[in-house]
Amino acid sequence: MLGWDQATYMPPGGAVARARQGALLSRLAHEKFTDPALGELLDELQPYADGLPRDCHDARLVRVARRDFEKAVKVPADFVARWSAHSSASYDAWTKARPADDFATMRPLLERSLEFSRQYAGFFAPYEHIADPLIDGPDEGMTTAKVQSLFAELRSALVPIVRAIVAQPLIDDSCLQGSFPEAPQMAFSLAVIKRVGYDLGRGRLDKTHHPFCTKFAAGDVRITTRVRENNIAEALFSSLHEAGHALYEQGVDVAFEGTPLNSGASAGVHESQSRLWENVVGRSRGFWEHFYPLLRDTFPDHFKVVPLEAFYRAINKVARSLIRTDADEVTYNLHIMMRFDLELALLEGRLAVKDLPEAWRARFEADFGIAPPDDRDGCLQDVHWYAGSVGGGFQGYTIGNIQAAQFHAAALSAHPEITAQMARGEFGTLHAWLREHLYRHGRKFTPDELVERATGGPMRIAPYVAYLRTKYSEIYRLPRVSQRLV
Amino acid sequence: MLGWDQATYMPPGGAVARARQGALLSRLAHEKFTDPALGELLDELQPYADGLPRDCHDARLVRVARRDFEKAVKVPADFVARWSAHSSASYDAWTKARPADDFATMRPLLERSLEFSRQYAGFFAPYEHIADPLIDGPDEGMTTAKVQSLFAELRSALVPIVRAIVAQPLIDDSCLQGSFPEAPQMAFSLAVIKRVGYDLGRGRLDKTHHPFCTKFAAGDVRITTRVRENNIAEALFSSLHEAGHALYEQGVDVAFEGTPLNSGASAGVHESQSRLWENVVGRSRGFWEHFYPLLRDTFPDHFKVVPLEAFYRAINKVARSLIRTDADEVTYNLHIMMRFDLELALLEGRLAVKDLPEAWRARFEADFGIAPPDDRDGCLQDVHWYAGSVGGGFQGYTIGNIQAAQFHAAALSAHPEITAQMARGEFGTLHAWLREHLYRHGRKFTPDELVERATGGPMRIAPYVAYLRTKYSEIYRLPRVSQRLV
Repeated sequence: MLGWDQATYMPPGGAVARARQGALLSRLAHEKFTDPALGELLDELQPYADGLPRDCHDARLVRVARRDFEKAVKVPADFVARWSAHSSASYDAWTKARPADDFATMRPLLERSLEFSRQYAGFFAPYEHIADPLIDGPDEGMTTAKVQSLFAELRSALVPIVRAIVAQPLIDDSCLQGSFPEAPQMAFSLAVIKRVGYDLGRGRLDKTHHPFCTKFAAGDVRITTRVRENNIAEALFSSLHEAGHALYEQGVDVAFEGTPLNSGASAGVHESQSRLWENVVGRSRGFWEHFYPLLRDTFPDHFKVVPLEAFYRAINKVARSLIRTDADEVTYNLHIMMRFDLELALLEGRLAVKDLPEAWRARFEADFGIAPPDDRDGCLQDVHWYAGSVGGGFQGYTIGNIQAAQFHAAALSAHPEITAQMARGEFGTLHAWLREHLYRHGRKFTPDELVERATGGPMRIAPYVAYLRTKYSEIYRLPRVSQRLV
Repeated sequence: MLGWDQATYMPPGGAVARARQGALLSRLAHEKFTDPALGELLDELQPYADGLPRDCHDARLVRVARRDFEKAVKVPADFVARWSAHSSASYDAWTKARPADDFATMRPLLERSLEFSRQYAGFFAPYEHIADPLIDGPDEGMTTAKVQSLFAELRSALVPIVRAIVAQPLIDDSCLQGSFPEAPQMAFSLAVIKRVGYDLGRGRLDKTHHPFCTKFAAGDVRITTRVRENNIAEALFSSLHEAGHALYEQGVDVAFEGTPLNSGASAGVHESQSRLWENVVGRSRGFWEHFYPLLRDTFPDHFKVVPLEAFYRAINKVARSLIRTDADEVTYNLHIMMRFDLELALLEGRLAVKDLPEAWRARFEADFGIAPPDDRDGCLQDVHWYAGSVGGGFQGYTIGNIQAAQFHAAALSAHPEITAQMARGEFGTLHAWLREHLYRHGRKFTPDELVERATGGPMRIAPYVAYLRTKYSEIYRLPRVSQRLV
């Protein structure tokens, strides 16, 4: 609640006290949660849990509570409080430093964030890689090595697609630029996310520097977005992205309210839902067959001369671009891989914070063939590192992209009518399938178990690569690629 | 923070969990605050405090901390949690029941609120009157008997003024009615409260069912208001009222941040500041000589044909009206006295909750000569009882009216130029005097001490009665009253 307020409505004068308040509550919560008496209760419960069917709620609740407890007791309460206070102060500084392109101000704060992150990892020693504890928190079961191997496999499949696309003429996406006042943009975003299934009686949409989704209770799952009055895509797709997270959280079994099971299985599975709704659904042709008339009604002067097909191509333009959150589906993962590698370098000590802007520029140029003009749209662009934590914050996005396609393929194979329904503005079948196979389970199953249960096999990149090849071969008319692989 | 959010932005689905969350935090805070170790620390500090000059910060800090501690330890943590959960649920129900004129739904909730209030008082037995502990909390030094005596004295001075006024022709205040869209109303309110000195870098203005002011820190003092698009007075004067509270809180010495001294001295002194800025300042002729041109610019079609004098008379119309928060300065206190007496009757057991609507109607008719058409604008109109607490919540408003005039008279006698400055839109001299004599002290001095220090004598009704007679004799052309008394 303190964090949501700080990002949405807190006046600037509140920042200093807010850091103190957040640190105090973090420390108190941590002290409560790491009370040895809780460990004893968990020990007492273990024989009961062991006697239960493996997949029943209580058995899984004990498992997850124990996992959380055992992680938490490794970290001193005082450390948690200091990290929280630092994170809050750093976030506040970043909201001013980014627009001012001021890396110098953020440098000492980021150095402290890195130090906090390394110390945190240290509490979990021994480990194979210093990033492992930071990754296993948000993405249970993943390790640095597994992510590296997954990313290498994906990269080798993506690079030829990117090359084939950039050899084609650039799509003209100027129809997304214009003058779009904030109020109707927000109203349109609200109409869209409501239609796909976000329950506004149990949520709300606000504006922040960096969009996010947060859950206070089953009945209170909020999202935020960011509006650019000169670009229609920003608010729309960040709203859809966060609505994807929110559909997940709103769909968790209410029986889990107030327990550790009452959220998503992992960062990756969570991201699969934001990316599924933002991209697989929200950038599909069918989706816009339904919603384009409403967008035209909202901004008639602008869109009356833009055919649906031109709009569809514009929102799926693939290009080497500066900003991760604006990136297309194909190059997006290159942004993630780059951040992941830079994080590893920082954590391993191979890269100093002072050299980050330069390392960012060099890597960006190598991967994208363009150089960021400044740090604002370079290494300052994402909140993650500046909200206090280096490591573990990015791999989930690409895992999510992979899983989004895998889950969507499984839903389609069970309900081929989903695609046609979407073009009629009906999202209930897809939503119900996702609720049944993912959302309602909350944290009951591990990410690997969830993928296995929902799709009948382990996580694999093939559905994602096939999805990208099919979609972009059609958009970019890439005959050889599509003949060979689709 | 949870309370502010519940009143401003929380989606309806959040209410159930919010009640639980608030109850948990109340209980934890209460447990922390009543830890016997804190009592021992206070005992250890006492000799140090006793050796300090009586009026130094530390001596007063120990006194106030001890007062709070000794009150808190009398109340079980479990009781605090249950009361908090009930209050939150009741408030939520009231936000729906009031518009629906549904007392039946609120009746069992109010019965529980009354029971909680009586039990709370019971923890402080023995007492002279069951309301005493409920009054001494918000208004230190006051008792039921003292309030009754003060109210009787004031009533005998007010009734002749009210009689003299209602014998005159009614003022036509139709110029306050019209069509005033919310956005420019909010913008105008913001411009006004900013000009009088409310620092928006350390605060903000939002909309709620019932306006309030809340402080999260020296740098974060927020207010809320209520907008009626058919009446210009509502948002404006409730914004000014809450801004008065906020000026007080924003003016507390920053040295008190994070200590029990970091708020106002009492409900009464607090209300003196909201009423001073809302009425003594905000309904004065000079104030509108400055602001009326801006109001005209904001709603030109409406106000271009309304002379300043007609507007000034309209905002000072005295009439028997249904709603306390809309009442004029003269009859306002009759609303308070009635609520205070009904509270005493409920607490003493002379009045059952089920009979409250009827008792309200009877008393209202006796005092005001009109009958409320429904409970919505009758006994359901104020949040206080429905936010969980019966008793102690109303006397502060009338104490505030009395003290507002007394403080204002003292400021004027030190700086007679204040009145002329106001007509130029300058509020710095008055604000500085109030900050110097009241605001900066926070809770350091008792209400009685503050009044004594700021005005050179104890609280007395004479300045308030003189203020009302002078102002309303002029507005209503009451020659006999003004000749005799001014």
